[in-house]
Amino acid sequence: MKIPKSHPRYASLVRREKLVQGWRDGIVVPEGLIAQGRGEAFDYLLGEETPAPALVAEKAAAAHLLTADRPVISVNGNVAALASKEVVRLARTVSARIEVNLFHRTEARVARIVKKLRAAGARDVLGPRPDARIPGLESRRALCHRDGIYSADVVLVPLEDGDRTEALVRMGKTVISVDLNPLSRTSQRASVPVVDELTRAIPNIEKFARELRADRQEARRIARTFHRGGNQRATLDYLAWRLKGLEARRKRRG
Amino acid sequence: MKIPKSHPRYASLVRREKLVQGWRDGIVVPEGLIAQGRGEAFDYLLGEETPAPALVAEKAAAAHLLTADRPVISVNGNVAALASKEVVRLARTVSARIEVNLFHRTEARVARIVKKLRAAGARDVLGPRPDARIPGLESRRALCHRDGIYSADVVLVPLEDGDRTEALVRMGKTVISVDLNPLSRTSQRASVPVVDELTRAIPNIEKFARELRADRQEARRIARTFHRGGNQRATLDYLAWRLKGLEARRKRRG
Repeated sequence: MKIPKSHPRYASLVRREKLVQGWRDGIVVPEGLIAQGRGEAFDYLLGEETPAPALVAEKAAAAHLLTADRPVISVNGNVAALASKEVVRLARTVSARIEVNLFHRTEARVARIVKKLRAAGARDVLGPRPDARIPGLESRRALCHRDGIYSADVVLVPLEDGDRTEALVRMGKTVISVDLNPLSRTSQRASVPVVDELTRAIPNIEKFARELRADRQEARRIARTFHRGGNQRATLDYLAWRLKGLEARRKRRG
Repeated sequence: MKIPKSHPRYASLVRREKLVQGWRDGIVVPEGLIAQGRGEAFDYLLGEETPAPALVAEKAAAAHLLTADRPVISVNGNVAALASKEVVRLARTVSARIEVNLFHRTEARVARIVKKLRAAGARDVLGPRPDARIPGLESRRALCHRDGIYSADVVLVPLEDGDRTEALVRMGKTVISVDLNPLSRTSQRASVPVVDELTRAIPNIEKFARELRADRQEARRIARTFHRGGNQRATLDYLAWRLKGLEARRKRRG
């Protein structure tokens, strides 16, 4: 399907097409399509643009990744389908490793995602031969790499499940999530919850990382002073305000 | 996957499983899975139960179906996967015809959905050999039956697309939608927008229809006095209130 650029929801429709393509390519699972829909609903409420509190969280995320000893970016099927290039670029900017980590893990799907990341410019992607386990998770969902997520101090987990986010926090890591639902367990548990759409969030984090790269002291200050509770409150206030605005607009239309 | 009944989101997870099964059976398309996710997000905000304004709309929907001359229930892939039995029961209670009507139409998928509805007890389902067109819609999306949707005075369109809802309203029909997004074009355009989850909404409508069946005069009164704007306002107020409540709960938890 060809989507005209003039369509008011062009970006959202392009993402949906990418995801359906990812599903055809065996990268995205049906549950990933449903998860995308949940995100779309929240993004609609956000007005499909990055709200101010998300920018603050994205800057804090950049600061954490930059000042980390062993930063890792975790990639699943939806992330690979939607933002392989953006992830590879960010990993390069903050010198992070990339690890493929699937909730519905099959080795064939891991291999396809690694291939897609390589095509987007990634070198040495972790994922195919996991040699460690995240404590407290069942069977295949616990699999990870000793050199990757297992020993990371800062992990970026875009579109991650709540159980895994929680397990990584319990391991003492700084966990940065990207999740459009501000009330999800992932957003509630992450150290730095970014409530923004993936393909906006990753380039934003990358841009902030470029800006902060020259000033490590400032990066450390920003990482230290990010106030999680205040940021989440601002996000929810913004969402309630948007809902009121949408209602008012509807009334004006008649 | 076996979901324990004790799971706090049991009903929601069962629906998701049904839909993924529908997709495996070739009844549900990928876009349908994404749409389900959007619904899940709004249902989460509603607290996964029928809010009071939805009950009012459901009663009005029952009244309209009961007092119609030619009521029709439109069924697509998601509706068939989630609520075939419920739809067949409602059709029987209000003497409505059932017509399979697909946004992403293929004849094979129409046939599979008809088969599923028959297995759920439906007789003479329309859909396979359309002989009319809904004016103002492009190509395959316009196809319908002269004896069904085309000449219906009241149409129930659960999980329907905005363009089609609008086109049916333009034809002068009373259009009842079931859509969890109170701000969607479907909800904004329908004559009676039911903002509730499908598998709760259809049995509710059916229950109200049973109650009203003995009193046609009361049914006519309810159909006539339903106030669309007031009902939508009440839904949005409820949603904003829920959002505030979720925020307060989050704060109490720390």
